[in-house]
Amino acid sequence: MTAISLDALNSADRATFVKTLGEVMEYAPWVADSVYTQRPFSSLASLHQAMVAAVKNADDERKLKLIKDHPDLAGKAAREGTLTADSTAEQSSAGLDRLTNNEYAKFHRLNDAYHAKFDIPFIVCVRRHGKDSILRQFEQRLQNDPAAERDAALAEIFRIAALRIDQRVDAPVRLEVHGRLSTHVLDTYNGHPAEGVAVELRDVSGNQVIARAATNADGRTDKPLIAGRPIPIGDYELRFDVGAYFTRLRVPTSDPPFLGIVPLRFGVSEPEGHYHVPLLATPWSYSTYRGS
Amino acid sequence: MTAISLDALNSADRATFVKTLGEVMEYAPWVADSVYTQRPFSSLASLHQAMVAAVKNADDERKLKLIKDHPDLAGKAAREGTLTADSTAEQSSAGLDRLTNNEYAKFHRLNDAYHAKFDIPFIVCVRRHGKDSILRQFEQRLQNDPAAERDAALAEIFRIAALRIDQRVDAPVRLEVHGRLSTHVLDTYNGHPAEGVAVELRDVSGNQVIARAATNADGRTDKPLIAGRPIPIGDYELRFDVGAYFTRLRVPTSDPPFLGIVPLRFGVSEPEGHYHVPLLATPWSYSTYRGS
Amino acid sequence: MTAISLDALNSADRATFVKTLGEVMEYAPWVADSVYTQRPFSSLASLHQAMVAAVKNADDERKLKLIKDHPDLAGKAAREGTLTADSTAEQSSAGLDRLTNNEYAKFHRLNDAYHAKFDIPFIVCVRRHGKDSILRQFEQRLQNDPAAERDAALAEIFRIAALRIDQRVDAPVRLEVHGRLSTHVLDTYNGHPAEGVAVELRDVSGNQVIARAATNADGRTDKPLIAGRPIPIGDYELRFDVGAYFTRLRVPTSDPPFLGIVPLRFGVSEPEGHYHVPLLATPWSYSTYRGS
Amino acid sequence: MTAISLDALNSADRATFVKTLGEVMEYAPWVADSVYTQRPFSSLASLHQAMVAAVKNADDERKLKLIKDHPDLAGKAAREGTLTADSTAEQSSAGLDRLTNNEYAKFHRLNDAYHAKFDIPFIVCVRRHGKDSILRQFEQRLQNDPAAERDAALAEIFRIAALRIDQRVDAPVRLEVHGRLSTHVLDTYNGHPAEGVAVELRDVSGNQVIARAATNADGRTDKPLIAGRPIPIGDYELRFDVGAYFTRLRVPTSDPPFLGIVPLRFGVSEPEGHYHVPLLATPWSYSTYRGS
Repeated sequence: MTAISLDALNSADRATFVKTLGEVMEYAPWVADSVYTQRPFSSLASLHQAMVAAVKNADDERKLKLIKDHPDLAGKAAREGTLTADSTAEQSSAGLDRLTNNEYAKFHRLNDAYHAKFDIPFIVCVRRHGKDSILRQFEQRLQNDPAAERDAALAEIFRIAALRIDQRVDAPVRLEVHGRLSTHVLDTYNGHPAEGVAVELRDVSGNQVIARAATNADGRTDKPLIAGRPIPIGDYELRFDVGAYFTRLRVPTSDPPFLGIVPLRFGVSEPEGHYHVPLLATPWSYSTYRGS
Repeated sequence: MTAISLDALNSADRATFVKTLGEVMEYAPWVADSVYTQRPFSSLASLHQAMVAAVKNADDERKLKLIKDHPDLAGKAAREGTLTADSTAEQSSAGLDRLTNNEYAKFHRLNDAYHAKFDIPFIVCVRRHGKDSILRQFEQRLQNDPAAERDAALAEIFRIAALRIDQRVDAPVRLEVHGRLSTHVLDTYNGHPAEGVAVELRDVSGNQVIARAATNADGRTDKPLIAGRPIPIGDYELRFDVGAYFTRLRVPTSDPPFLGIVPLRFGVSEPEGHYHVPLLATPWSYSTYRGS
Repeated sequence: MTAISLDALNSADRATFVKTLGEVMEYAPWVADSVYTQRPFSSLASLHQAMVAAVKNADDERKLKLIKDHPDLAGKAAREGTLTADSTAEQSSAGLDRLTNNEYAKFHRLNDAYHAKFDIPFIVCVRRHGKDSILRQFEQRLQNDPAAERDAALAEIFRIAALRIDQRVDAPVRLEVHGRLSTHVLDTYNGHPAEGVAVELRDVSGNQVIARAATNADGRTDKPLIAGRPIPIGDYELRFDVGAYFTRLRVPTSDPPFLGIVPLRFGVSEPEGHYHVPLLATPWSYSTYRGS
Repeated sequence: MTAISLDALNSADRATFVKTLGEVMEYAPWVADSVYTQRPFSSLASLHQAMVAAVKNADDERKLKLIKDHPDLAGKAAREGTLTADSTAEQSSAGLDRLTNNEYAKFHRLNDAYHAKFDIPFIVCVRRHGKDSILRQFEQRLQNDPAAERDAALAEIFRIAALRIDQRVDAPVRLEVHGRLSTHVLDTYNGHPAEGVAVELRDVSGNQVIARAATNADGRTDKPLIAGRPIPIGDYELRFDVGAYFTRLRVPTSDPPFLGIVPLRFGVSEPEGHYHVPLLATPWSYSTYRGS
């Protein structure tokens, strides 16, 4: 999807406007249509706010329909391939298209329990989550009373909408929907940044490599390990090949070295947060902290 | 096997003496027999030294037979269950009884190449090694010339003998054949030792839990995680449940916590060394080092 | 003063008993005399407790006299040299015999204000304090009401008594009146304890060197920097000659080195506590923490 | 002194040009004059290079006169106030106008010895030094042979010239004559930057406060503690009021706190280097390192 600039969107005709934003709210192009006359929007935030207000001001029936038109997570539509393009990409981002049988069964049970209690599909902004945190959310929200849960569903819809706007429309000031995960490696044996350290970022629950990089002359990676999107809530592990680094510098070590691959494991709870997780290392010691 | 005291051994009759020490050298009770007249031994070290000297002073034929009577590692005898009790326990300690097909094939190839080059079995004191370091040794020693390799084989036989003596005979001063792996956890958020932290020690290449413990009021485990034996050469990971610890203390954190399970990965190169690997942690930072 | 063993004290005659313990309570040998019949004491703690009880059970007049017989801190008796030997040593331990004119004037003012309000001398167990913390105590206790302040004075008299018993009587189990201040230095550049590092302990407010030592092969000092007495409340600075250590090891550094003298400054609030303040250092980094 | 832009200097007439740059080389306006025809200079570096070349290409007599026209450090001219404005400011920057009698006598002795051996004044770019490092330089250079020492003197003259050009002429790209000293404070108790920590930078040998600041929301000072000039070679101490910071946050600590004022002491050997010296602290632990 190529993004359109906010300026271009502001001067687009009604058809183009609605075509661009129609799917920001799942199966509800009327939301985009209803804010068309409020153009020009001075920012992505005011555009998002207008769409949110349109939903909030709608009558209960319409709200309920908006909620009900959302697909189940890891549900029938997903298996049958009848999700919207956005929903397909979103569910895939959280690994919901790669569930084990056990996990699938668990989602199935939770979906059933949720429908039975609330008579709506369970909605969560999956780009902000990993599989584990979705399941945790699911279980927590099953405890809500129906009114609170409808509010929770709408809040998630508005988060989804913000990310969909972010993907469709370009503007100098972005919506605050992106997190950033970065690192840097300091060689405290030599007192300077560690250059050329191989770094791997893994998703702990999914047991997958998410990013690979090597540190540059500043001990940083050329770009953040995650940027331009939320960091899914979950546990991560950074792995640094400290052993290879010091071997290359001909620092005397043992065989195997005391420090070879150094793993730093940490949890992300704020998908829009900035996580800076540095490593300070000698061949015999290291430390880390949530930096800034 | 119940150990006999050195005093008792020193006053034992020849039959008991040879029965006790006969298998210290694989299939070579003559070694024990030949040192019987040198009793009393003032220490385990002098007993070991006497047995080593007996082998060194033997003629080449006898030395070669001693070497050749050793079984292959992960070889036919192991599969068929015809190893001596000592060899069975030793090979099992390094996981050689739990090889994957690939690993088994690799040992097979290396054994063949080794026999072809040296016409003796490959001997290594497996209690000092993990699977990976045995394979590394195997490949390195294949580069030796035959004379150097026979010396290497005898040196390993003497290491095996020391550990077998250590298991059979008690004395106030032990042979220096044991390593020690310990940890302690300091809570630098509250400025005192961290009590009740669940600790797990894993063998990285074998992907196995070796030890589990919880820290006591001093932030230490009641006994070392490894003691009374060599620490097999290899890579280890300590895992500390820092998240549960701080949650129990009602320290405000995020969900999931920034630090939940903290892994410390390190290599052991000196099986008889003392490895102290402490953890200093707050909910947002930690450090480790090879301590003393 | 040579200490007498608790056993010997238990079997001493009344005169010796009272001579030994008569000055445990300032100018009040009647306290020692009154507990004589309770011999034998099973421990220093029970002896101390008996003397405390004797005072507590005395009538108000006697208690008041006991309090009033104490000298002023940094007062006329001190200047004229008419203090008891115990008081002289105690006041000197906190540096009260080396006051500047300003400090002397401050004590004078506080003593006057205190006498005016309470009509007793200000009593504090000076061995547990530095000059600054005595002044802080002085100001705080001036806020008390008279009854609370008499209790505070007696509590301090009992602390003084414990330390005086500790000096006079030997027993296998000591009174818990001693703190301990220790350090160790870890060279995280080389991964082992740092041997031969010159260490200096300074009293920050007094700007005095209290102890000097060098680390041994374990990176520790042969004996604690402070032991066998309370650690006076106050601020301390440990100074480690890290620069000279790494220079001696021919580690490449700059001129002047990034780390030469490393100062660690910390406060002591529990005179009977154990303070372990280690240093972990490379030529380019260091860390410290309250250890255990 | 108001700086002139390089563009303006390039288009200035000869008189203005020489007036601006005449004192870049002490008492030697001929150097500026001789490069006038080489205008326009594309950068400060090429201007400096031209002036350096003019001196190098001069005959020995002229070079010697340039050297000899420099004043003694802490010498008669300084005491009598007959130094050039540049020299006055420079000698003052290193504290040479505030010597103790002992230090003055030491300079006097060294100047005499130096004159006796080399028959020239001792020249050093004092803005790059503290008092101690000047004295160390003095003693080291007294060991030189005369030819090497003349080269050393000229090299220092060229460094002085670079700094004087830097003060007189503005250009988008500066000469690399500035160092930078910065810090930041991370609160690893709460996992975020420490805001509002009072920081003091002290010159250790001069026992003077050089800079005071408080950390901002990023845990940094609004501007570097030293920037826009060389960092004089020497030992520095940063002092952070960690105790007050945690007290303000109502973190439970002791009285006095374990960490009150935290001093970080470090040496600067590269006046044009970037020194980043951060502090990571909880109420019970801290660490620092040469950062980047």
